[in-house]
Amino acid sequence: MTQVFSTYEIIDKKKRAQDLSTEEIKWFIDGYLKKTIPDYQMSAFLMAVYFQGMSVTELAALTDSMLYSGKTINFTDPTVVDKHSTGGIGDKASFILAPIAAAAGVKIPMVAGRSLGFTGGTIDKIEAIKGFKTQMPLDEFKNMVTKRGLVLIGQTEEIAPADKLIYALRDVTATIDSIPLITASIMSKKLAEGARGIVMDIKVGHGAFMKKIKDARALAKSIIATAKRFDRKCTAIISDMNQPLGFAVGNSLEIIESIETLKGRGPADLELLSVELAGQMIYLGGIAKTPAEGIKKAQAVLKSGKALEKFREMIKNQGGDERVIGNYDLLPLAKVKTDVLSEKSGYVQSFENQAIGQYLNEIGGGRKVKTDKIDFGVGFYFHKKVGDPVKKGEKLLTIYHNENQKAQIQDLKKIFTKEIIKVSAKKVKALKVIIEKIGK
Amino acid sequence: MTQVFSTYEIIDKKKRAQDLSTEEIKWFIDGYLKKTIPDYQMSAFLMAVYFQGMSVTELAALTDSMLYSGKTINFTDPTVVDKHSTGGIGDKASFILAPIAAAAGVKIPMVAGRSLGFTGGTIDKIEAIKGFKTQMPLDEFKNMVTKRGLVLIGQTEEIAPADKLIYALRDVTATIDSIPLITASIMSKKLAEGARGIVMDIKVGHGAFMKKIKDARALAKSIIATAKRFDRKCTAIISDMNQPLGFAVGNSLEIIESIETLKGRGPADLELLSVELAGQMIYLGGIAKTPAEGIKKAQAVLKSGKALEKFREMIKNQGGDERVIGNYDLLPLAKVKTDVLSEKSGYVQSFENQAIGQYLNEIGGGRKVKTDKIDFGVGFYFHKKVGDPVKKGEKLLTIYHNENQKAQIQDLKKIFTKEIIKVSAKKVKALKVIIEKIGK
Repeated sequence: MTQVFSTYEIIDKKKRAQDLSTEEIKWFIDGYLKKTIPDYQMSAFLMAVYFQGMSVTELAALTDSMLYSGKTINFTDPTVVDKHSTGGIGDKASFILAPIAAAAGVKIPMVAGRSLGFTGGTIDKIEAIKGFKTQMPLDEFKNMVTKRGLVLIGQTEEIAPADKLIYALRDVTATIDSIPLITASIMSKKLAEGARGIVMDIKVGHGAFMKKIKDARALAKSIIATAKRFDRKCTAIISDMNQPLGFAVGNSLEIIESIETLKGRGPADLELLSVELAGQMIYLGGIAKTPAEGIKKAQAVLKSGKALEKFREMIKNQGGDERVIGNYDLLPLAKVKTDVLSEKSGYVQSFENQAIGQYLNEIGGGRKVKTDKIDFGVGFYFHKKVGDPVKKGEKLLTIYHNENQKAQIQDLKKIFTKEIIKVSAKKVKALKVIIEKIGK
Repeated sequence: MTQVFSTYEIIDKKKRAQDLSTEEIKWFIDGYLKKTIPDYQMSAFLMAVYFQGMSVTELAALTDSMLYSGKTINFTDPTVVDKHSTGGIGDKASFILAPIAAAAGVKIPMVAGRSLGFTGGTIDKIEAIKGFKTQMPLDEFKNMVTKRGLVLIGQTEEIAPADKLIYALRDVTATIDSIPLITASIMSKKLAEGARGIVMDIKVGHGAFMKKIKDARALAKSIIATAKRFDRKCTAIISDMNQPLGFAVGNSLEIIESIETLKGRGPADLELLSVELAGQMIYLGGIAKTPAEGIKKAQAVLKSGKALEKFREMIKNQGGDERVIGNYDLLPLAKVKTDVLSEKSGYVQSFENQAIGQYLNEIGGGRKVKTDKIDFGVGFYFHKKVGDPVKKGEKLLTIYHNENQKAQIQDLKKIFTKEIIKVSAKKVKALKVIIEKIGK
């Protein structure tokens, strides 16, 4: 780039809500990558973006700059469709919807994240399966998508390195919760990964990054607008995160629940959401004429067992022990089970969902900081959903933990009954898992 | 301090407009000074303050933390009063008001700044006088205030070091123009310098940091409220900066104009403002019962020549060559004078005042970056004020410059007539130098 801008002017313009040109944004991101623009100027800029937002043009320029900061993959096949979730507690839908969509003919290049903060990571969960390889060269990844139709790998240094740097800075400067910055972060990676269509699962509730429906809606619209600028198909589902998705929270426990769902014995909310998202993928991939037809196809391949077979195939393709499908003992699971009992009779009113994620980290099931090691075996298995009747002395959840954690678990039992799960004397309405569909 | 806070939480709270506690602010500033809080978190915080502002309590805590980041001086004598100007083009009022107030019995501990960006620096200007010492140990400074009644020194590393660090960061992250940050910066230094009363000269117009009267008013109120929290007397004058103050812009030229004003031959606007500010100082110092009485006393000592004597004394006290009072040839003055003539007849309509400061830097009279050396001799001497009639071919200003600058000055002549000084065919109203008085 030959044109030279002033870093100060760019920050100042954004601060004053003046539109930045595409060239200015590219120059700024490029300078940050080359380290000619220091962190302290980038963080001031990010905070200004938090307050002033970005126009669709600015956001497209930011996404574009981050997208082309690293390698990109390109699929021309219109059946290549990806899915992204903004993350939540017990969210294992990827393990169900991806095999379903793949069984229906969609090709899925899934690049997923690891646990950090209060949300779990798809990659950590799948690694509970012995031997499952989540890293591979990008050309091998591309080949596998084309030939096998379903691949799941972890984020790589090669894709959108600018996003990695900027995300790390946002994480320590309180600039995570900005719609344009979230959009650019998600879309720079998704676009670099080359899918022609993207289905978004935007979680909302107190176990999600988006606490309010209006923020979730704004993010959905921002992502769909950005996808459009880059000529990709995109739809978004806003789904509930005021309670865990399904019953299982914890790496091995979630893999078991996913396989159970693929066998047709899963929790209703998890199956409903997975089938909906898979149906949208089937529709975006052009294999169904309408989303409703996509959902029907999704239901059919789930019922027929073809989706379960796709999951088995994926495990095998990526070096994992696929016998796990029939034998859950092959998964590392904590030896001690402690039940948490309800202290009163009534109806389950609410879950402090974010705290559940944080306590999973506390007992070793997730990461507080990047370098934490994960214990696949620990976790929580809930027996109730919001609205369910419960009797005094009845099990609310079972904690899976290790021998040496008994004292910690005694404290946790109290926290669960006193703070995390509220039981009301009055009847409580059940929560709908799918709140809204945005885009066609 | 034993209490530990989270840097992230502090940034996040400010971002969400939640009030920070005094302890949180102290901990944050302290951490920044100790370098446990990095620049990139401070700059995100500063940008959040720009958008969300600060309560009076928060601002007092910020000022206090910055004030006690270094050494402080304490005067118990109620006649110790200081003045601060937010800076402008041709602002040499300090050299006139300080001797006036001192001649009336006020004790003045003046700590002033250097040129940076488009505004000049009082310290650079006084250094045009050979031998004038602007650095001394703080105890010597304190002694001189008590014994001599008038001292003028440059900013020292010992006073409010946190302000120095934060200012440097604001300067590159577009967070200068924040009322609470400006207030804390000014007041942390002024309070550390120990005066019992402070008179503020807040400049407004296109040659000042504050472009709008409402911002100037907000700053005045913020400073007065902060002074009150620290039990200091404070009044503020909002003065015009849409044209240079007086006629002279440039270091030696401004010293000459100051001495001329002390001799009773100065420009009307400069004399009026200086007398007003000195009058306020005399009033705050308890030497007059009302500001009006203060102004009368100021006029009297100016007329009697006592103020001029005080100025001579100050130069002598600080090692300068006081013969300059009678012999301007002792000042370094550029050898070549180039007149800029009006291209049409009419009335002077406006000055691009900020550009005047920037072009003074261009010809060597100020600093663009901190390491620039200053040429005391160059400058601009204007012959007209806004509203003055002017004839085609009449002098608008005289540029004082060096032999080797002739080509540059030819370009500058065009810039002055085409861009900087606008002449209108219609009559134009003169500008009032004193716009508003705030506080009693």
